[in-house]
Order: sequence, then structure tokens, then C-alpha cells
Amino acid sequence: MGYTGAMKTPITILAIAGSLRAASLNTALLRAIARLAPAEYAIRIYPGLGELPLFNPDLDADSLPAVTGLRDAILAADVLLLASPEYAHGVSGPMKNALDWMVGNESFIDKPLVLLNASPRATHAQAALRETVRTMSARLIDEACISLPLLGSGLDADGIAADPALRRAILDMLQCIRSFS
Amino acid sequence: MGYTGAMKTPITILAIAGSLRAASLNTALLRAIARLAPAEYAIRIYPGLGELPLFNPDLDADSLPAVTGLRDAILAADVLLLASPEYAHGVSGPMKNALDWMVGNESFIDKPLVLLNASPRATHAQAALRETVRTMSARLIDEACISLPLLGSGLDADGIAADPALRRAILDMLQCIRSFS
Repeated sequence: MGYTGAMKTPITILAIAGSLRAASLNTALLRAIARLAPAEYAIRIYPGLGELPLFNPDLDADSLPAVTGLRDAILAADVLLLASPEYAHGVSGPMKNALDWMVGNESFIDKPLVLLNASPRATHAQAALRETVRTMSARLIDEACISLPLLGSGLDADGIAADPALRRAILDMLQCIRSFS
Repeated sequence: MGYTGAMKTPITILAIAGSLRAASLNTALLRAIARLAPAEYAIRIYPGLGELPLFNPDLDADSLPAVTGLRDAILAADVLLLASPEYAHGVSGPMKNALDWMVGNESFIDKPLVLLNASPRATHAQAALRETVRTMSARLIDEACISLPLLGSGLDADGIAADPALRRAILDMLQCIRSFS
């Protein structure tokens, strides 16, 4: 084994991209992670962010399948992985909208959470996301939160997975998650 | 007259609340402003934020009436007034979603803009909004950006308009807008 990981395997990871773009770099990154992950990790990329309504406290969250579906998927995962683009120096609207819906339930409380950043120069959104998920009582796995130089790379999921430096960074990130207690 | 305002009257102001809640404090604040505004100001409270789809760069913005409607309303206004709640130490998802849609058009460029804050302790969202609208090339009217102690006050639009201190702050804010060049 060699590892003395604190988490039981398989480690279930729910991965959410903050962009709804089909060719999103962040989604490509999550796909590359799912492809590279050893068998001890079970990674699900969440497909339903775009189905959430705009956050409105007047709506009954429990009656909205898009909201309860996200909540239940987070609750069922050992670890939450968020990869969000930065739009106009801020968190993407769709990502913040999803977080707003989760404030009213228990899904983020004590949830081990990793923030991935596909653009090392995009510091505003990452800092804002960090503040928000901490406010929601998630447990940030700091050592696993990484920035990768994907913006402008033209890489898709295959290209990311095939790049030696990116591959190593992703496997290190997964190992950090495994060691988290 | 007494004033040497730089803006031609009537000054048209588009006011947008970042909350979709019917009893939103931010919406109440905008209603109070519309009620208190002297005749030189024409204030419209934008009703369509909740009709925007979640931001998706793959969609053709020009074919979405909710997007073009917001763009045209901003373009037609002399001044944009944003009042957003803070959710989990961040900008409200619906507000950021609206901003994301406007990044791809010219509506914010050089637009005089005021940020209102209904909770003086909610500093994270205001700072993030400020960064985002500056990135979008809006012209912040700094002297008009005010925080008002509405959170927990239980006040509605009538109550806000009737409160002497709030009334004075609102009229000062409008005067700052008028003096802006």
C-alpha cells in the first residue's frame, strides 16, 4: 500500500465545473482528473448545474429537484471538488448561484472541499470562492487546492491527462485528498 | 436652481436589486429611492433579473430577449444603480449572473454606476462587486456609493422613505449622482 490515507476507499468525489460552456476548460480538467484517478477514487462530474433556477429565497428549495439533487449528491460524496472560471474578476454566476442554493441546507457543513483553478492569474474568483465556502463551513483541503496553467493552452481532457506536468499535479492533488483527515 | 449638476435632467436611473425575494430589503430600498427622488430624476426599477437564463457562453446572447432587454435598459439609462445582498460573503448569484451576461456587450462601458449596500457589515460582496464592475469598465460614482443600516430594521419602502436619516442619505446620494461629470 505505502499510503496511510485517512479516508476509506473508494473515496467518492463529486466534481463541479462553474462554467456551462460545452468546451469549458474547467470541465475538461475534471474529465482529465476522472480519467487519471486510480481505482481508489470514484469521481462523478455533476451534470446539473445548468438546471438550477436562479436563487430565490421565496421558492421552496425542497420542492425543486434540481436543488435537492445537488444537495443529495454533495451529501453522498466524501469530497467536493469545485473548478470555476473567473468572469470579470468574480466567481461565475452559475457557480455562485449553486452555492446560494446550498446555504440553506447542511450539504457544505464539514464537507472536505478542494478548489481548482484553471488560470493561475485568476486570483479574484478563487479568493472569493474560498471565502464563501469557508463561510458555508466547508473544510478546505488547502494542500490540494491547485492552480494549473490551462488558460490559452488549447488542451482538452485528453491533452491535460497526457501532459506530464499536469498529470503529476493532478495525481499529487488526489493523493493530498486521500491523506486528508 | 442652486445646483450646477453636470448631468442633463431628467436623469434617467436604472435600478437593479440583486435579490429575487419579494420582500427584499434591497428592492425596498430602490422603491424608497424612487419615491423620494425629486422630479429631475426618472427612476426605473428593473423587473427582469429573474428571467435571465444561467450564463452560458455557448448561447447566442442576441437571441435571448431577457439578455437584450437588460442590455438595452442599461444602455438607455444615464446611471446604473445596483443594490445587492451578500450571500455567504459573496455577491448574490442572480446579480453576478446578470453581470456575466453583460460582459459580452457594451452596456457597462463608461456607464456611471452606483453601488448601494443595505448592510454596513456586508463588506465582501460590495468589494467583489466593485472589482467586477470596474473590470467591466463602468465609472463608479464613489461619493454616491453608500451603506445604509437596513438589515434587521424591519423597514419596508415606506418606512425607509419616512426615516429622517435614511431619507437624507438617499437625497444626498441622488445629489451626488447629479453632480457627477
